Amino acid sequence: MKIGILGTGMVGVAISSKLIQLGHEVKMGSRTAVNEKATEWVKQNGPKASHGTFKDAADFGEIVFNCTAGAVSLEALKMAGAESLNGKILIDVSNPMDFSKGLPPTLIPSLGITTSLGEEIQKAYPEAKVVKTLNTMYCDTMVNASLLPGDHDVFVCGNDTEAKARVKEILTDWFGWKSIVDLGDITTSKATEMVALAGMYFFGLKGSPMYNLKLVM
Amino acid sequence: MKIGILGTGMVGVAISSKLIQLGHEVKMGSRTAVNEKATEWVKQNGPKASHGTFKDAADFGEIVFNCTAGAVSLEALKMAGAESLNGKILIDVSNPMDFSKGLPPTLIPSLGITTSLGEEIQKAYPEAKVVKTLNTMYCDTMVNASLLPGDHDVFVCGNDTEAKARVKEILTDWFGWKSIVDLGDITTSKATEMVALAGMYFFGLKGSPMYNLKLVM
Repeated sequence: MKIGILGTGMVGVAISSKLIQLGHEVKMGSRTAVNEKATEWVKQNGPKASHGTFKDAADFGEIVFNCTAGAVSLEALKMAGAESLNGKILIDVSNPMDFSKGLPPTLIPSLGITTSLGEEIQKAYPEAKVVKTLNTMYCDTMVNASLLPGDHDVFVCGNDTEAKARVKEILTDWFGWKSIVDLGDITTSKATEMVALAGMYFFGLKGSPMYNLKLVM
Repeated sequence: MKIGILGTGMVGVAISSKLIQLGHEVKMGSRTAVNEKATEWVKQNGPKASHGTFKDAADFGEIVFNCTAGAVSLEALKMAGAESLNGKILIDVSNPMDFSKGLPPTLIPSLGITTSLGEEIQKAYPEAKVVKTLNTMYCDTMVNASLLPGDHDVFVCGNDTEAKARVKEILTDWFGWKSIVDLGDITTSKATEMVALAGMYFFGLKGSPMYNLKLVM
């Protein structure tokens, strides 16, 4: 199928490349239609790979992934535009983290105290079916769960039950996730965003991003 | 040994009661020397149980647990006083959460954005050996790890290696923890406090506080 990826950073590239491997058509989107990194990626990934603006990518995708940095996600989505997102599943992989002062990042207060980035995106695009997921582990693990041995979880949050069911299929069938924890509606994005921040310390502990969590109940 | 417990809420009672069962002498401390809840607890827990002010409890303890609500922890510790805490292991179980608007709580910005409650306590009492631990799971599980079946973790953070080693012994020998993850210095308290906040959503998901996390690496 046709998939739009917003963001050309590590996460965007990891997801886009995996989707191309799986045979999908992928358009990566960034602030400008010309983007050196994206051009290189397109060259390496063959005829099913393309690049454009955020709006081009959102228009192209039957499903859209938000892989932009949390600090600029709302701005990037604004550039994509509601009319390009309405009615679509918008998989939000972003985190409300401020990396401007180095590692570990800090929580962006306006997106992390009385709300969450997932919620704010859903509020800004009420006609999009926002599903928060994959934001709690390393990007290579996101698209290949078995890269990290053992039993560990991916979380899913969202208001639209059907959209979540489809995203769970994607997680299982495309990315190999065996354990999916549905936390509830989009307000539960908060839990995943907190876990993602804690993850920056787990990263520091091991000096490697190969970690994840298992919820034991 | 003699242990001081600051706070007479659920966490303070759970830890105090377990310590009494283990044969220790425990003094619970609160804002005032007369406290109905603590009086009742003392009555139920026999001659090794006692109660007093925060200062009384801190003076009494060879080891002190901070089990006060995060929003008032720094104030409670001020009432205990540096001279009563200096040189002692101060086990910090608190979380920087604001419950004033109900559940789930929100992060207290002044204690949770560019710092953590564990760090702030260590900064305020540089002569105390602050060890952050046990703040990421339900209080009954804190003192009885096997209450929740399966393999799950307790985190430990602190600047003093010897103090952490002693706390790890306490976690294992007294509370039955088999898997202890030493995250590093006291700044890593942040990770545990984020996990604790996420835990409020896991609580909501299951409708039960019987959950914990396993760090998979």
